[in-house]
Amino acid sequence: MKVYRNLAQILTLKSAHAKDGRRLIPADLSLIETGAIAFDESKILLVGPDADLPEIYHSIPAFDGKGHVLTPGLVDSHTHLVFAGNRAREYSARLNGADYQAIAQNDGGILHTMSKTLACSEDELFTASVKRLERIMSYGVRAIEMKTGYALTIEGEMRLLRVAARLKNHYKGQLQIISTYMGAHAVPAQYKTSAEFVSAVVLPAMEQGHAEGLIDAVDVFHEQGYFNSSDTETIFKKAQLLGLPCKIHADEFQDNGGAELAAKYKALSADHLLKVGDAGIAALASSKTVATLLPGTAFFLGKDLPRARAMLDAGCKVAIASDYNPGSSHVDNLLLVASIAAPSLKMNQAELWCAMTLNAAAALGLKDQGALIPGHRPIFSLFRAEDLAEITYNWGVSLSRPLP
Amino acid sequence: MKVYRNLAQILTLKSAHAKDGRRLIPADLSLIETGAIAFDESKILLVGPDADLPEIYHSIPAFDGKGHVLTPGLVDSHTHLVFAGNRAREYSARLNGADYQAIAQNDGGILHTMSKTLACSEDELFTASVKRLERIMSYGVRAIEMKTGYALTIEGEMRLLRVAARLKNHYKGQLQIISTYMGAHAVPAQYKTSAEFVSAVVLPAMEQGHAEGLIDAVDVFHEQGYFNSSDTETIFKKAQLLGLPCKIHADEFQDNGGAELAAKYKALSADHLLKVGDAGIAALASSKTVATLLPGTAFFLGKDLPRARAMLDAGCKVAIASDYNPGSSHVDNLLLVASIAAPSLKMNQAELWCAMTLNAAAALGLKDQGALIPGHRPIFSLFRAEDLAEITYNWGVSLSRPLP
Repeated sequence: MKVYRNLAQILTLKSAHAKDGRRLIPADLSLIETGAIAFDESKILLVGPDADLPEIYHSIPAFDGKGHVLTPGLVDSHTHLVFAGNRAREYSARLNGADYQAIAQNDGGILHTMSKTLACSEDELFTASVKRLERIMSYGVRAIEMKTGYALTIEGEMRLLRVAARLKNHYKGQLQIISTYMGAHAVPAQYKTSAEFVSAVVLPAMEQGHAEGLIDAVDVFHEQGYFNSSDTETIFKKAQLLGLPCKIHADEFQDNGGAELAAKYKALSADHLLKVGDAGIAALASSKTVATLLPGTAFFLGKDLPRARAMLDAGCKVAIASDYNPGSSHVDNLLLVASIAAPSLKMNQAELWCAMTLNAAAALGLKDQGALIPGHRPIFSLFRAEDLAEITYNWGVSLSRPLP
Repeated sequence: MKVYRNLAQILTLKSAHAKDGRRLIPADLSLIETGAIAFDESKILLVGPDADLPEIYHSIPAFDGKGHVLTPGLVDSHTHLVFAGNRAREYSARLNGADYQAIAQNDGGILHTMSKTLACSEDELFTASVKRLERIMSYGVRAIEMKTGYALTIEGEMRLLRVAARLKNHYKGQLQIISTYMGAHAVPAQYKTSAEFVSAVVLPAMEQGHAEGLIDAVDVFHEQGYFNSSDTETIFKKAQLLGLPCKIHADEFQDNGGAELAAKYKALSADHLLKVGDAGIAALASSKTVATLLPGTAFFLGKDLPRARAMLDAGCKVAIASDYNPGSSHVDNLLLVASIAAPSLKMNQAELWCAMTLNAAAALGLKDQGALIPGHRPIFSLFRAEDLAEITYNWGVSLSRPLP
């Protein structure tokens, strides 16, 4: 058992959780000032004001949390972390006015990342990913999702799943890793239709990955020119047969019913949503599906930010993630992206913190996690600060420190 | 004499400079691939492809620049760096919907920073500033401006000017510091009119600071409820009498002719410009005054970004700065702010780099600086990268390294 005492503040998000995680009570952070927490390896035993800590805990050597704020562990619930190469020149070309097609013709786009990734061994991909994860953990992130989708062949996707599994094993106890299979990321040119590619590659690789126990969730890039509703439903039905939860890249380029599909298939999350319409928002609001916003991508591509306020006001459960990837969001720092976007998204502190912790955990199907209440798992982030507000106030400067 | 050889790239911005620094040729970075540069303590002697380096330089022990990109030194041309305390709670309150007045009544706003700053000794302010500057230099910044304005008494403003002078001396040869006097930051409650405060404090402190050689430039917060056109002209005229260049906080809250005043008084820069109108843009475009954009402040306050494209297209010389301060832009990383804003501002790479170097140097009146050409001062930033594009592509991750 471990005890932290005298923490300047503990962000519990208790009230948000108490509402079944569905609606957040605005501005209610459920903050405890000068707090104490006791936990064992699997769960939180007790949280409250330090002054109320029962006598029985006093004899346990405790970490002195003076000058520290404890929060639920930060969760980055949408990344494409396992890749090789960089697309800096493409980013630069886009600033200089190049359009998508010009970039694709100039060895850019997803094909660039695919060929660089293919050229790497699993060892090399593992090593590059570890380097990235070490930095990400330094920001205070305690759980992260990573998607496949940079191979688009059965063996290639299996390779990416194996790298994720190796990372998961490597970081056991330090960092939760959720491995999402996204064979349906784009349709390779050799397939006549998306449906043909789904049959030939997406479904078989999903079966194989599942059989080897390598898949935590299944994602689809549901956009015009990528995968249509019929493809997506085929993939989701297969996933449900296998008992795998679904996620979806939805309504980023245009409103094409992605949010509604997410709700219909009880997806863990619908992500991007830059162009989601009112019907999509209503569908998400009446479901348990998390609306995951990726403001870094909007900034990176110079697009308008998502309508966070409309989603929150409608009752959607909103998460924020980095979308870390080499092409459309080359930023690995969830806290930075969320902090910079928050004032423009008109999200208050409670909504923001829920979006980075409680709701992001829900977007990954992580149970009993994201609020600091007895019975929940002891997944925390710890910051050198006197006040929670300082964490998001210091843009680009990490106040995170390792857990004692 | 020093020589750097084999640099992956050198960003010279030669063509931007050749046009008198007035207009930037879009997308022309004047990049040299595999470059070499020779310089002495005061000026650049030679820049060009490594293969063309004259024999005479070959015997000089050179830094091997493989895997490095050299750029003109980054210049953060607008900060309020010397302050005490933090306003994290105010930032949080604003996210939670508090308006300006509620914040001011709750010990927030500039008065908070003023009382915290007043409570510190000059030593304490110096030490806090050094800590900030060390981090800022780690981003690759080689020149920085800092404004007074958190005292608003003659003696208090003199204290801030003395701290800046001490910093200037401390960092001689490492970091250029420009000390801007901004006694006209806000009107203290005890003065009936802004004009009264200008006479009683702003002008006398300017005279005294100038007499002691502590002022490099004079700035005015020209906004409704702060200083009107008559005040600003009074201050500018006095500055001109003393031979001090002017700067202006212009058209941030509303278009009130700040840009036109800047052009009229040949100000070094007009800063903020969130609400500048077409007439103001035209006035700046036909002047040498730099239009300094502060996108961090717009993000921080959840406001719309400035119309960078309109200014660039009209022919304005555009700079970007951090506006680092505890209240409205608590971000000390110019490169981070500029990178995140660039796609939304629709600025290309050449415009962006000019905005952080050449034009920012002009906004501080730094002569012969900002382009890497013979005769210019040897003020560089050095980054671990193969391609210039990587520097702004890696959001929040500094690739800067100390100069050898």
